[in-house]
Amino acid sequence: MDREFTPSKRTNARRRPDRVRYDKAAVYAVLDASLLCHVGYVIDGEPFVTPTAFWRVNDTLYWHGSRQNNMINKVTGERARACVTVGHLDGLIAGRSGKGTSVQYRSVMAFGHPEAITGRDAKRRAMNVFIERMYPGRTEEIRPALDQELDEITVVEMLIEEASVKVKTDGVIEMREEDYEVPAWAGVIPIEMRVGKPQSDGRLAGNVQPSASITPYEEGVRLDGVLARLAVRQKAG
Amino acid sequence: MDREFTPSKRTNARRRPDRVRYDKAAVYAVLDASLLCHVGYVIDGEPFVTPTAFWRVNDTLYWHGSRQNNMINKVTGERARACVTVGHLDGLIAGRSGKGTSVQYRSVMAFGHPEAITGRDAKRRAMNVFIERMYPGRTEEIRPALDQELDEITVVEMLIEEASVKVKTDGVIEMREEDYEVPAWAGVIPIEMRVGKPQSDGRLAGNVQPSASITPYEEGVRLDGVLARLAVRQKAG
Repeated sequence: MDREFTPSKRTNARRRPDRVRYDKAAVYAVLDASLLCHVGYVIDGEPFVTPTAFWRVNDTLYWHGSRQNNMINKVTGERARACVTVGHLDGLIAGRSGKGTSVQYRSVMAFGHPEAITGRDAKRRAMNVFIERMYPGRTEEIRPALDQELDEITVVEMLIEEASVKVKTDGVIEMREEDYEVPAWAGVIPIEMRVGKPQSDGRLAGNVQPSASITPYEEGVRLDGVLARLAVRQKAG
Repeated sequence: MDREFTPSKRTNARRRPDRVRYDKAAVYAVLDASLLCHVGYVIDGEPFVTPTAFWRVNDTLYWHGSRQNNMINKVTGERARACVTVGHLDGLIAGRSGKGTSVQYRSVMAFGHPEAITGRDAKRRAMNVFIERMYPGRTEEIRPALDQELDEITVVEMLIEEASVKVKTDGVIEMREEDYEVPAWAGVIPIEMRVGKPQSDGRLAGNVQPSASITPYEEGVRLDGVLARLAVRQKAG
């Protein structure tokens, strides 16, 4: 398997090539640290961006929705393309000048031709991968999907044909030496997505406690770290 | 000023109209709680989505970048349209079935025709609004922008022509009464974007401390709350 996505006119870095990479490990790391992506698509020549939950298996991204979902139907249309973008805001960079003021981030843009997965069994398998990706072991604990439920959704798969990853971890960088003499505090304010206190549903069956499928989401832990640890493991070979 | 955006073919809710709203107060609330948006645009008929920092003044969204930035140049091209989307992931809904498994979110899709702000003074004013939106009072503390710095950037403004907001705050909802008897924990795992411990730059001028422009970002507070409080206030009338 190739270790890099090939730069193209879509992903080739025109500026700041030092911030942009194409190696799959770096692309995967940013994707797997998120549950939310933003899917870009075109209808009648106009741009649309819809946020949705997604998951990754090897070089393929997956998401799903109702069979009536407009985004789902448009991106799986004939020859339709999509741009799936994941962006993490990691910090505010407070400089002593506007130029030195910026943000830290990680982002991936991935391009491909999404397709609809048809067939109950294939949809069932895909949705189970999604549930296991979030909650390892949970498909053994919950009520299996009904045929009708599977018939009501479309699962989308998109082989990543091109992708790039952009990461900015800089601290404050001032352009002029004298800017460092400005008597204003400067530094980085980290931004972290964290898990809050889990709230039990009011209708639990008896005294059930969170199992090992839920306990990774311990109060206070960083979501990106949990999601990265729980990501679908690539099969060897 | 109208209190609602008018639904159109772009924003009209086909399904679940109960989750979709068009009133400006609701749209603003979701936008103002974020610093990051995802800008969708079209190049040669193909979709692109670029994450970037943005700010709002009344019905206009702003973002900026280098004059060489490809996204910036494409979205400000003649007759170019953009879709600016903001998505917050607010919680994981762990159900007793796949159907009951979902996420809590807030999102806005806003559509318009972005334009480039030209002229140093207009760019200077816009960038000062951005800095003040993040750090109130900070333009008085930092080194003012140089003409050359302003010449090197493009500031984009986009009047929101259409927008919709979608919010899901549900807890666990199972479709069948008997699903509530499944002996698995079910509930909501809240997800919160929080401020980490500010890291001072290594080259502070003397013993400067964070001023009132920085102290809203106290360690542990929720970023969406801080950003909403610091949002640009709409002028009366």
